[in-house]
Amino acid sequence: MEFKVNSKELEKLLSKIIPAVPTRTPMPILENFLLEIKEGQLTIYATDLEISLKSSLNIVAEEDIRIIVPARLLNDIVRSLKETVIHFKILANKKINLITDTGKYTISYLEGEEFPEIPSVNKEKNIKELNEISINGMDLKQAFESSSFAMSKEEMRPAMTGTLLEFTEEGIRFVTTDGHRLVNLLNKKVVPKFNQQYVIPERAVSVLMKLLDEKEVNIYLTKSFISFKLNDIELITRLIAQKYPDYSSVIPLENELLMKVKTKELHDSIKRMMLFSISSSTKKVKLSLSKTLLDISAEDIDIGAAGEEKVACDFNGEELEIGFNSVYVNDVLNHLGSEEEIVFKLHSSTKAVIVEPVLKKENIDLMMLLMPVRLNT
Amino acid sequence: MEFKVNSKELEKLLSKIIPAVPTRTPMPILENFLLEIKEGQLTIYATDLEISLKSSLNIVAEEDIRIIVPARLLNDIVRSLKETVIHFKILANKKINLITDTGKYTISYLEGEEFPEIPSVNKEKNIKELNEISINGMDLKQAFESSSFAMSKEEMRPAMTGTLLEFTEEGIRFVTTDGHRLVNLLNKKVVPKFNQQYVIPERAVSVLMKLLDEKEVNIYLTKSFISFKLNDIELITRLIAQKYPDYSSVIPLENELLMKVKTKELHDSIKRMMLFSISSSTKKVKLSLSKTLLDISAEDIDIGAAGEEKVACDFNGEELEIGFNSVYVNDVLNHLGSEEEIVFKLHSSTKAVIVEPVLKKENIDLMMLLMPVRLNT
Repeated sequence: MEFKVNSKELEKLLSKIIPAVPTRTPMPILENFLLEIKEGQLTIYATDLEISLKSSLNIVAEEDIRIIVPARLLNDIVRSLKETVIHFKILANKKINLITDTGKYTISYLEGEEFPEIPSVNKEKNIKELNEISINGMDLKQAFESSSFAMSKEEMRPAMTGTLLEFTEEGIRFVTTDGHRLVNLLNKKVVPKFNQQYVIPERAVSVLMKLLDEKEVNIYLTKSFISFKLNDIELITRLIAQKYPDYSSVIPLENELLMKVKTKELHDSIKRMMLFSISSSTKKVKLSLSKTLLDISAEDIDIGAAGEEKVACDFNGEELEIGFNSVYVNDVLNHLGSEEEIVFKLHSSTKAVIVEPVLKKENIDLMMLLMPVRLNT
Repeated sequence: MEFKVNSKELEKLLSKIIPAVPTRTPMPILENFLLEIKEGQLTIYATDLEISLKSSLNIVAEEDIRIIVPARLLNDIVRSLKETVIHFKILANKKINLITDTGKYTISYLEGEEFPEIPSVNKEKNIKELNEISINGMDLKQAFESSSFAMSKEEMRPAMTGTLLEFTEEGIRFVTTDGHRLVNLLNKKVVPKFNQQYVIPERAVSVLMKLLDEKEVNIYLTKSFISFKLNDIELITRLIAQKYPDYSSVIPLENELLMKVKTKELHDSIKRMMLFSISSSTKKVKLSLSKTLLDISAEDIDIGAAGEEKVACDFNGEELEIGFNSVYVNDVLNHLGSEEEIVFKLHSSTKAVIVEPVLKKENIDLMMLLMPVRLNT
């Protein structure tokens, strides 16, 4: 059994699949690609049992095969080659020869049966509650980029380690929170015909962010997995089987105090204040608001250092002091960096604060929420 | 006591001094800068007891001071600021205020007496055996860049962890070796008026490589330390107080077999062969030489993988097989990357091999040496 493939085409395909190969795993089988040839189509799969990636290439081959090959070694060999034709010869002794004009490389393979099964919408035609929707790849990418940072790292509450995708008649909502901050983004460009919540794991989000571009994405949603079909690659992710906490109860409705500030000025100042707060346990930065001036300060008692800065603002209240974890403020500002001006919506020094862009994007509602920390600790 | 300084000028100065501040040290005092003002000149020092850096800036100040301040915190504050004037106020309560238009930052300081003494050529006017020489900064940088990789990491033989600087009537020679490979570079542009060997530690070499540019460097050499005076910064390094091994006895004189090969072709091939040798203990790659063809191969028995490639060469012998550690060959080729063609000078499969550029640079003799590994293991 043999086939030929262009090294650069194969390199491109493998580079898209390799992110699903786990770097450390107690199951060595997962460090392999499943390589399938069927009716002249080469399909390569990888999985870490949570997410799976697959992509195909048309080739000329007379027989079908289904074998597994060491993923990183094959990827490293292929990308180390100049553009050339690679002649694959699959031998009976569980070896594959990769032959080029100037070299011959031998790797081992195993039969494909040993590879874990990968969920597929096609395989299970009779899936109950199969939903379909399509969304612009860039919109999806930007929604993940705005929200992924707030996913929790605490394994205790699995749902919060993922991203909530909520489909309603309003649009598609993306929610992430770790209890200290929350991101709530509603994309109203797409109007789903179904009402449903899905929680997708962090790894699916981080791999998708790398793969997405401006092309349309078809999403197939089942009770247990979601398939994202991109132009030339499919990502299948298992869902987190836990209900997402009721995020809406956390979002305050009556934050009547508004403070507008230039994003970059505030962010530069917060980054400097981190120098004076980062080594303390609360990482606290204090914001003292008055009509036109925001006073930002932090103090590191251990090293006897402190910082204080003034930034122009526009505040509709009298005076208010409020404390935040400077790292969380920095995270929020990092993800609002493209906004020239933002508004803080406050009620008191102990209530959750909403941070939003002053200029809304069309059909995208983006809201971030920050929990304050107590000042007198 | 107070003084003012431009933030960008201070940032530039601190960025050059900070490399001498150790990242981990049992002596917290070394995590500080010594900040000295004398006759209107601000001088900043840092040391890890092995290397020291100092640099100065003219300022307007009415008093002299000598204090120590937290190095990383000061560096981080200064580089986080936009271009502005920083007003330093040194207070009696062991605090310094750094005041700008929009901010005020407070850091702590200690009296300068606690800082370790830094060797100085100026201080010890009566130094015996003080030698002086000057060399173009780029020549010095390139000599270090060609040779530093071969310094030994084994603490057992301290001299080999450094770089030998040998001053003779021929020029300045740079030698590094770890017993497996050796670099020997002779710069004949400078003709020293003295004969002497000095061994400088790895950290001095790596910091110097970052600081050097095309400007002339004045070097002052004493029995115990060397001072490198660059345009705006001085690096002082202690010497390794152990005699360097006799490198010349290792260099074979009668390697009559010559193989010429294109550097990039060989290097690309070796990089691919590393995929098949890197996980084995010897990391062995085999070179089979014939008149016009070099056959390069490696085999990883553990994972059942192997590679073999052919590269055109020009060999004046019959046939010869020789093995090398592929990592060491790769290192040597990495540092001959700017040479289009190189020559391997060989005698047999067990004798040291010399690798040199085919085209010699004017007044620079560069020679690398590789020890072979046994093939039948």
